Amino acid sequence: MGKVLRQQRCAVAVLEFDTKVFKKERVDFAGKPEFIYRGGRDKYNLLPEAFEGIKKIGVVGWGSQAPAQAQNLRESLEEAGVTDVKVSIGLRKGSPSETEARACGFTEEAGTLGEVFDVISESDFVILLISDGAQAKLYPRLLAAMKPGATLGLSHGFLLGVMQNDGVDFRKDINVVLNAPKGMGPSVRRLYQQGKLVNGAGINASFAVHQDATGTAADIAVGWAIAVGAPFAFGTTLESEYKSDIYGERCILLGAVHGMAEGLFRRFVRQDMSEEDAFKNSVECITGPISRIISTQGMPAVYEALDAQGKEIFKQAYSASLKPARDICEEIYDDVASGNEIRSVVQAVERFDRYPMGKIDQTYMWKEVGPKVRAKRVESEIPLNPFTAGVYVATMMATVEVLRDHGHPYSEICNESIIEAVDSLNPYMHARGVAFMVDNCSYTARLGSRKWAPRFDYILEQQAYVAVDNKEPLDAELFQKFLSDPVHQALGVCSEMRPPVDISVGGDDSDEGVGVGGARTEFRSIATVAA
Amino acid sequence: MGKVLRQQRCAVAVLEFDTKVFKKERVDFAGKPEFIYRGGRDKYNLLPEAFEGIKKIGVVGWGSQAPAQAQNLRESLEEAGVTDVKVSIGLRKGSPSETEARACGFTEEAGTLGEVFDVISESDFVILLISDGAQAKLYPRLLAAMKPGATLGLSHGFLLGVMQNDGVDFRKDINVVLNAPKGMGPSVRRLYQQGKLVNGAGINASFAVHQDATGTAADIAVGWAIAVGAPFAFGTTLESEYKSDIYGERCILLGAVHGMAEGLFRRFVRQDMSEEDAFKNSVECITGPISRIISTQGMPAVYEALDAQGKEIFKQAYSASLKPARDICEEIYDDVASGNEIRSVVQAVERFDRYPMGKIDQTYMWKEVGPKVRAKRVESEIPLNPFTAGVYVATMMATVEVLRDHGHPYSEICNESIIEAVDSLNPYMHARGVAFMVDNCSYTARLGSRKWAPRFDYILEQQAYVAVDNKEPLDAELFQKFLSDPVHQALGVCSEMRPPVDISVGGDDSDEGVGVGGARTEFRSIATVAA
Repeated sequence: MGKVLRQQRCAVAVLEFDTKVFKKERVDFAGKPEFIYRGGRDKYNLLPEAFEGIKKIGVVGWGSQAPAQAQNLRESLEEAGVTDVKVSIGLRKGSPSETEARACGFTEEAGTLGEVFDVISESDFVILLISDGAQAKLYPRLLAAMKPGATLGLSHGFLLGVMQNDGVDFRKDINVVLNAPKGMGPSVRRLYQQGKLVNGAGINASFAVHQDATGTAADIAVGWAIAVGAPFAFGTTLESEYKSDIYGERCILLGAVHGMAEGLFRRFVRQDMSEEDAFKNSVECITGPISRIISTQGMPAVYEALDAQGKEIFKQAYSASLKPARDICEEIYDDVASGNEIRSVVQAVERFDRYPMGKIDQTYMWKEVGPKVRAKRVESEIPLNPFTAGVYVATMMATVEVLRDHGHPYSEICNESIIEAVDSLNPYMHARGVAFMVDNCSYTARLGSRKWAPRFDYILEQQAYVAVDNKEPLDAELFQKFLSDPVHQALGVCSEMRPPVDISVGGDDSDEGVGVGGARTEFRSIATVAA
Repeated sequence: MGKVLRQQRCAVAVLEFDTKVFKKERVDFAGKPEFIYRGGRDKYNLLPEAFEGIKKIGVVGWGSQAPAQAQNLRESLEEAGVTDVKVSIGLRKGSPSETEARACGFTEEAGTLGEVFDVISESDFVILLISDGAQAKLYPRLLAAMKPGATLGLSHGFLLGVMQNDGVDFRKDINVVLNAPKGMGPSVRRLYQQGKLVNGAGINASFAVHQDATGTAADIAVGWAIAVGAPFAFGTTLESEYKSDIYGERCILLGAVHGMAEGLFRRFVRQDMSEEDAFKNSVECITGPISRIISTQGMPAVYEALDAQGKEIFKQAYSASLKPARDICEEIYDDVASGNEIRSVVQAVERFDRYPMGKIDQTYMWKEVGPKVRAKRVESEIPLNPFTAGVYVATMMATVEVLRDHGHPYSEICNESIIEAVDSLNPYMHARGVAFMVDNCSYTARLGSRKWAPRFDYILEQQAYVAVDNKEPLDAELFQKFLSDPVHQALGVCSEMRPPVDISVGGDDSDEGVGVGGARTEFRSIATVAA
């Protein structure tokens, strides 16, 4: 049975959930204990018990997460030999997504594709994956359509934030649970597929039990996380999740890395690098060697991989960038925690009919230079530029520090600031550029990245690079603090809990992991209200 | 007696105020009537009657507005032969501003300099000019210190926005009036000084009566506006004022023009202009010929000044920029109207002790190129670049359109989108670069400019310039709409109501209008709580 804690707007709490079905493990993160559940294909046999009483799972929507989660869930249940649970997709009638859902095997004939409100009212477990903006608009009707005693599954705490802004609560006769994969949908799908060959490969998830009407909510939450392919799932709350998630994607996960890439590319060109070299030393360097080193050996290993001169440059870049990057990170956290950022997303969605999201990758750098560089890429020859490395690692540390200061647990910090960046997202920018990464994420993430990328770009150029160019003395203590930061140990613990599998996704001329049910290459710019 | 209208959070209303002392004039703005009061030195003889019963005017603070308003007010009263009204400065004990205030002739000995709360409790008219962030923090104490029946003077509706967010109201036994000069403090001072030679030169103001406890609030409000040097004052409400003001400075007044300058400079360099030429064709072109033409002849005259080829380029740039610029303008308006922007400023001020505002003009473009170009400047040789002109005018029109769609009156639109830009602010960027303009404004404006400049830069580069480079077909109707827009007639009406005086402010090596009591060249980066 899951313990439920009444949430305060500002509180961040981590809970110890108990389930009847899965085995909790205690993990020591840099001296702080947390509790996790391990996933993997060898746990699928527990799904029938976890989902007891659930005959129909309705996955509502077809955005970033829905195609991945619905397919993974269906395949995991098949693998477990479950034949009497139907995974169905709920879409607005006439939605352009119907064709894609059918192509993925969800059909009206089989009773696995239907109209949103029909699917909701028939389902014992409703997984609500329409866009955050649509949730904000439709939640009173969506909630009202649910059966008493059914379970509402969210993959984001955003809706709670909206309801807090509105001053309302969930109806009391349903379970409300969370399974939030720490990666965009296409990566959740792609690594699940790779996990068929390497048991345990997948995207980590956080889970939460916000409301437990039936006494089985925790079983359902953890079962859901494992069925979707989490190598491990850690406990959180809806509030802690939405704060760290909306914050993280605006910082190093999407916004900061985009803004930084633009600024570093410009800087290198101004310093007389060729455009192709500038692209290699900024974007390619981040998505290639830096991401790979952090993924397998952690942040200090990036510094250690440099020669003496490179180490000096890294130190200077790191020291000059940490505080400016943190300045923007703090602003983002405050804007998320105060509800500003959620209001701002809801307002942007209201404007979509007049101002759809524009493309971010039609400028010279992304349109002309990037594809040329990728076409000639020799992976092992991508330079590890020490300046880029210092700026990137500092911004990642800034993202980490603000989450830690606000009381988030290490499992959440490591996933929202580091693992999701290097294992789920950067590989997509590596494959096809910035939009392939940003625009395969949720509308909330895409809007946030557009909003904050330029802020990181400007503050780094105005403050960090100016300090380096003026040879301002560096803060040795600050750098020592980096090398000995406990987050490195915590990240090490996370890494041990799953096999080291690089996500494999197709580049400009490949269709690996790309296409219907996987990653998109053309992005929607208007969120339809219920699809 | 002023009519007071109960404000709705979303309503924008313009009121017809009546005063016993000043003569109202009806003005026709593009077919819509508004009521204004004309200022000028010939009206100072009415000040004794307008300020009847006021023996002490306490000007609290010493930021952008206070030095200008206090000095102007003192000199206007002197000019009117008023000897029994004291203008006193209220500052936090030990404030570094005390020295500056003394240097401007406000002293403890004369009883014209004192501690904040002492000055408030002794004043019949309290002009509250501490920073918005400090007001947000201190308003319960500040309001409580006032005498019953006294008048609270605000130069910004920000405090009302804060109190709306907090769900509280002003105490009922005081007057609450607004005089909001449509220019930063140093320009209010500088044009007042120039107005001693040319009667009526000055910065226009909006005024409002939010609460009239004594029946004389409108006299005080209009008298204050005229005494500070407004050539004309137009009626508004606190709410309409804070929305248009916070919005305007984030758009074309500061944020947009900064972001645009950065982006255009980069673009021209990339197109192989020399850096000095790129600076001339972006920044200099905006602050020189474009501003001068708009100030004296309006926006379409910029287009008319071009040759046939230039006109084509202007059209393309205008057509491609209008919608992307409007996209950001709409976002800003929504964020201001929903209270997000005010919350965000209050939060930024809370972080000032850890994250003071950084400099924005230490990058190569502003630090190295700008001063070199200005040193060699021949005013008449600054190019009128048609591309820059198209982008600038489109962004100005975007700023106008959003205000108009939200029901703001033309007097407010013209001042907050056009006149303040070309007559008050751009001349400061012309004199010494971007920080001299942005950072001589309020903290709220400085924070907003830092926040939104990069957004305009990115969206113009990602959408507008890409469309031009791809030779996307232009929208002829949209351009015809520009040429015949009624705002041009409204601006013409505004121009007729004051003499055409260019603000004269010292460049890099001059001290005209610069120094104690005037414009600063070193900017504070931390708002102290009550100074």
